[in-house]
Amino acid sequence: MNNFVNDIADINKDFAQWYTDVVLKTEMVDYGPVKGTMVIRPYGFAIWEKIKGYLDAEFKRIGVENAYFPMFIPESFLKKEAEHVEGFAPEVAVVTFAGGQELSEKLVIRPTSETIIGEMFAKWIKSYRDLPYKINQWCNVVRWEKTTRPFLRTSEFLWQEGHTVQASAEDAEQDALKMLDIYKNTLRNYLAIPTLTGRKTENEKFAGAVATYSMEAIMKDGKALQAGTSHNLGQNFSRASNIKFLNKDEKLEYAYTSSWGVSTRLIGALVMVHGDERGLRLPPKVAPIQTVIIPIASKKEGVLEKCSEVAKTLKDAGLSVKLDDTNNTPGWKFNEYEMKGVPLRLEIGPRDIENGVAVAVRRDTHEKTELHLNNIAAEVASLLDEIQANMLHQAEINLKAAIVQTDDFDTLVNKVNNGKIALAYHCGESTCETEIKNKTTIKTRVIESYSTAHKCIYCGKKSKYCVYFGKQY
Amino acid sequence: MNNFVNDIADINKDFAQWYTDVVLKTEMVDYGPVKGTMVIRPYGFAIWEKIKGYLDAEFKRIGVENAYFPMFIPESFLKKEAEHVEGFAPEVAVVTFAGGQELSEKLVIRPTSETIIGEMFAKWIKSYRDLPYKINQWCNVVRWEKTTRPFLRTSEFLWQEGHTVQASAEDAEQDALKMLDIYKNTLRNYLAIPTLTGRKTENEKFAGAVATYSMEAIMKDGKALQAGTSHNLGQNFSRASNIKFLNKDEKLEYAYTSSWGVSTRLIGALVMVHGDERGLRLPPKVAPIQTVIIPIASKKEGVLEKCSEVAKTLKDAGLSVKLDDTNNTPGWKFNEYEMKGVPLRLEIGPRDIENGVAVAVRRDTHEKTELHLNNIAAEVASLLDEIQANMLHQAEINLKAAIVQTDDFDTLVNKVNNGKIALAYHCGESTCETEIKNKTTIKTRVIESYSTAHKCIYCGKKSKYCVYFGKQY
Repeated sequence: MNNFVNDIADINKDFAQWYTDVVLKTEMVDYGPVKGTMVIRPYGFAIWEKIKGYLDAEFKRIGVENAYFPMFIPESFLKKEAEHVEGFAPEVAVVTFAGGQELSEKLVIRPTSETIIGEMFAKWIKSYRDLPYKINQWCNVVRWEKTTRPFLRTSEFLWQEGHTVQASAEDAEQDALKMLDIYKNTLRNYLAIPTLTGRKTENEKFAGAVATYSMEAIMKDGKALQAGTSHNLGQNFSRASNIKFLNKDEKLEYAYTSSWGVSTRLIGALVMVHGDERGLRLPPKVAPIQTVIIPIASKKEGVLEKCSEVAKTLKDAGLSVKLDDTNNTPGWKFNEYEMKGVPLRLEIGPRDIENGVAVAVRRDTHEKTELHLNNIAAEVASLLDEIQANMLHQAEINLKAAIVQTDDFDTLVNKVNNGKIALAYHCGESTCETEIKNKTTIKTRVIESYSTAHKCIYCGKKSKYCVYFGKQY
Repeated sequence: MNNFVNDIADINKDFAQWYTDVVLKTEMVDYGPVKGTMVIRPYGFAIWEKIKGYLDAEFKRIGVENAYFPMFIPESFLKKEAEHVEGFAPEVAVVTFAGGQELSEKLVIRPTSETIIGEMFAKWIKSYRDLPYKINQWCNVVRWEKTTRPFLRTSEFLWQEGHTVQASAEDAEQDALKMLDIYKNTLRNYLAIPTLTGRKTENEKFAGAVATYSMEAIMKDGKALQAGTSHNLGQNFSRASNIKFLNKDEKLEYAYTSSWGVSTRLIGALVMVHGDERGLRLPPKVAPIQTVIIPIASKKEGVLEKCSEVAKTLKDAGLSVKLDDTNNTPGWKFNEYEMKGVPLRLEIGPRDIENGVAVAVRRDTHEKTELHLNNIAAEVASLLDEIQANMLHQAEINLKAAIVQTDDFDTLVNKVNNGKIALAYHCGESTCETEIKNKTTIKTRVIESYSTAHKCIYCGKKSKYCVYFGKQY
């Protein structure tokens, strides 16, 4: 019935269409006029603002400062770092004409700012006294993709890219790990998304990194979504950008850098981890509207007044609330806000007011309970906490259910092709991993643990680690 | 002496060089690798973050929602609005190549998002019930300029652009005026910058606007800087973008729109309105560091401990404070933080600690006072309030002193060429105003008041209004 009313595809029959229907119909996003671009509408952008605000505070807490670097990168910069250019060249957009004339040097629009930030670091950093240096920027980046989907893969998207410079390899490694930790905790505690986090294999690491760490969220269709990465770049980018510093022994040394980022992809992860047949389900902490108030028999005397009074009480308590006093029917409104994923709905009618209660309906469990109007703010707040905790709990159950441990390769392929993530031992050989990918299109996600006590699931040689295999977005 | 130590040009001898020295040496900004671009460094970006935070809250208070629109605009869009394209065509940067191939349609990088936002509004807005519609976005824009200066004029800069859609001409006009008011009050109450605000003449208004309102800040060299504009676009952009809505009489009507924006130029205004021979002077409300603590004889027992204790006390009181415990000499530190415009300096040495005081030195007046360590947070807070108020007061005095009222044209030219803003009556004729501009390069800033009781300062015909004339950045 809801599906009919809200007219979104069946999540169990066509997950991809369900996703597109949900993000468009909830007005989180729309297609831009240029193919592959997206317009992030207020309902979607409000979520990004919350994620941004939360993460930005976390970054600043550990001494990261924000800055802004130009988006135009001289074409020559991308060629400085062979592996780097290899990674991005096919995806870049190029400005060849500006200010009424052909440019002498073409300008690449940043697919990431590594090279331009490296150039500035080389200019700014002279001595170990200048270190550590921790910079972050919130900006738009461009990666020209053939096939695109709102939030998941678009030609232009928003992200944050952090870059740190350290005087030792250990400190750069620590930065990379610390950021992975901040990301993991943010997803868990704020977005209610548990993740598989760990190191990427040599085959799957970022071009030019010593080590790439990733957090992978598992969508309801069993596919993994790389939700954030953190790279220990060692001295690779310092060499490419000539970032040298005078160390304590007064010797010039290449600096050690790290970089890390998350993007508007996180909004796609929210949708695909928590959504259900009725549409979006937003964890209270990140929901633009935490509670919607729906007047019942709103023409009846005192109903709208009481609803506004409750709305004000909740606002004053710091909760985000919306009172829908439009002429639409209550039923229509129920569907509307369920589709929009509002965590809690309060229904207030004449009888409820007589009884001094509001009927509360949870989006996560559809449970109905009665809250006392004379204590509404406190009761709503604790109910929202319950919902936040329960949504994480549900997501953890789904994550566990999605993982299958196996030592049989055919089982691995079969399970992964049927929407599971497989955990298996692997020899760690690049050639072996590549063969698996070419044969099955299945890739490794992150390394779960190291052990030489087992056999590689594919080649049978001695295992190096236990790693997650899966399909990805 | 300070000029020597800080090595910045003399503000009275070479204002332009002084500006460049100050913004570079205080590490607010640096030049980007691509000519005409800037890197906004943490000390400058922290100021932008504060301005952004303050304005964003003001916007949301009146129901404006944030969104994000793609920066790529199909070339054809700019041609929709003849006047609009005329305004921007020479300045645009064009992407002709992306994803490894030539593009079938060239993409312009937004010089402003009017056209693309108009396209989406046309899609989203159907009925008067959808109105008013108030959207804002914080983003980067590109305008390819021949001569550039950090913050004042760069190929890429950051700004906010707000766009509202209304069902009546009056409401669009009210939006434009309300935003001008918000801008004016923000500059006055937050940045301590008084402005000349009012309507632009027909000659100087934004291409395609019914009316352009502007706030002009007057720099210490007597030149005006257009610090923010607000446009009533009437139905012009609706016609160009086909934004129609069903009005209450069920008739299709073109909507009425407004747009308004401020940019990172405001940082340049801060520098040139408040700065002095020693460098920056930042109003406490927008200063990244409000108070710097300098230990005197820091080797002496208990000095550093007391300094950290005071720093913590101030932080806990919500004040931003920095303790400089490096080995540089106090004198060197004094110059450093004066150049950086830190509003208040606290000096704490053994004798001060004995006497239970800290020596406070104001950046705005250089006055020295003693504050009581046992009441330091409250006394610092009230001193910062005094500084904020005094800086506005000083800026108002400078503004008044810069304005000369005259009814003699030669005097007008002479005064403006010598760093003044002239207030004079004008006939309001476009041809007359153009003649003045061509002959003297002097332009009108904003209309101060309307009166037909006088003669035009140039052609002698009946006056239409009293308008400010001046040179500008």
